[in-house]
Amino acid sequence: MAKPIDFYFDFSSPYGYLASTQIDDLAKRHKRDVAWHPFLLGAAFKVTGQKPLVEQPLRGAYHAHDFMRSARLLGVPFRLPEKFPFFGLAASRAFYWLGGGDKAKQLAKSVFHAAFGEARDVTPIPAVAALARDLGVEGLEQGIELPETKEKLRVVTDQAIAEGIFGSPFFVVDGEAFWGHDRLAQVDRWLATGGW
Amino acid sequence: MAKPIDFYFDFSSPYGYLASTQIDDLAKRHKRDVAWHPFLLGAAFKVTGQKPLVEQPLRGAYHAHDFMRSARLLGVPFRLPEKFPFFGLAASRAFYWLGGGDKAKQLAKSVFHAAFGEARDVTPIPAVAALARDLGVEGLEQGIELPETKEKLRVVTDQAIAEGIFGSPFFVVDGEAFWGHDRLAQVDRWLATGGW
Repeated sequence: MAKPIDFYFDFSSPYGYLASTQIDDLAKRHKRDVAWHPFLLGAAFKVTGQKPLVEQPLRGAYHAHDFMRSARLLGVPFRLPEKFPFFGLAASRAFYWLGGGDKAKQLAKSVFHAAFGEARDVTPIPAVAALARDLGVEGLEQGIELPETKEKLRVVTDQAIAEGIFGSPFFVVDGEAFWGHDRLAQVDRWLATGGW
Repeated sequence: MAKPIDFYFDFSSPYGYLASTQIDDLAKRHKRDVAWHPFLLGAAFKVTGQKPLVEQPLRGAYHAHDFMRSARLLGVPFRLPEKFPFFGLAASRAFYWLGGGDKAKQLAKSVFHAAFGEARDVTPIPAVAALARDLGVEGLEQGIELPETKEKLRVVTDQAIAEGIFGSPFFVVDGEAFWGHDRLAQVDRWLATGGW
């Protein structure tokens, strides 16, 4: 099997959520795995000088509308949580504490669905811990406080920025970078053709 | 015939150029006209706090690559001019001096092709005047200095911003706003279905 597709996202990213509902199936059609990499987009914003979309004049109103419209097009439930943008620190650390494999992906999907499918607040540690318990995972509260867990998220975030990753979602396919859920059609084509 | 599609762009926008090569044909498939509206994106950036893409850390390198890749996918020639971003003031004023109809569109296409198809500098008035002469249009140097010409561009730019238009290209289809050349597939679908 060829190299996995790298999928970078921030838990507070609506377009990251939309992409998360598509990328595994898309990859599977090309017999690829997907390596999920939650990171802290705020650290990248410090480099690029960006602010969260909804805090930007004009752009904010457009994107609030576009989140819904894009979700409807995909047939994916979408409700913006009251507290938005939020800080996905606990969920991101939990992902790496779980090792980044299938269980971690399940939790990530569960967090995304709670946040943007059901408009729930997933910032508090107990909220993420409850989602983990639904998947049979205990001890998240302690796990995400481990120094190695915290360090892992820091390293992933720093490396992502060093590799030029500045947005969410962001995909890397055999060294080729694609930014935005609206580039999934290009990712699909790149996988089918090997590039153009 | 139903309402025309509004197509807003800045002449210095590579994605605006790419969209300009697609939008008329796309609209024609749905029996629609396209009303082209060059405006000064810099005025919108003052409101949104954005800077030109290539001046932004991390984002600049990605987009320089993505311009080329997106152009190749469309089969459209693309070379970034040495002076970029540039100021499309003369071309924008010329468009409105020509009244915004077919001749103005021809000139706009010619300017875009010179700038991004051939990497020529289209900022100087004589450069735009030469392109106009190739279309049989004389007197551009004087026409773009007319107070009513200057005022028209000012009004279009102010109205665009007042309507929430903050990027290039930007489309409005029956009141529905779409930002980015990568939303053309959504524009196409919206026209086909009347929305979703």
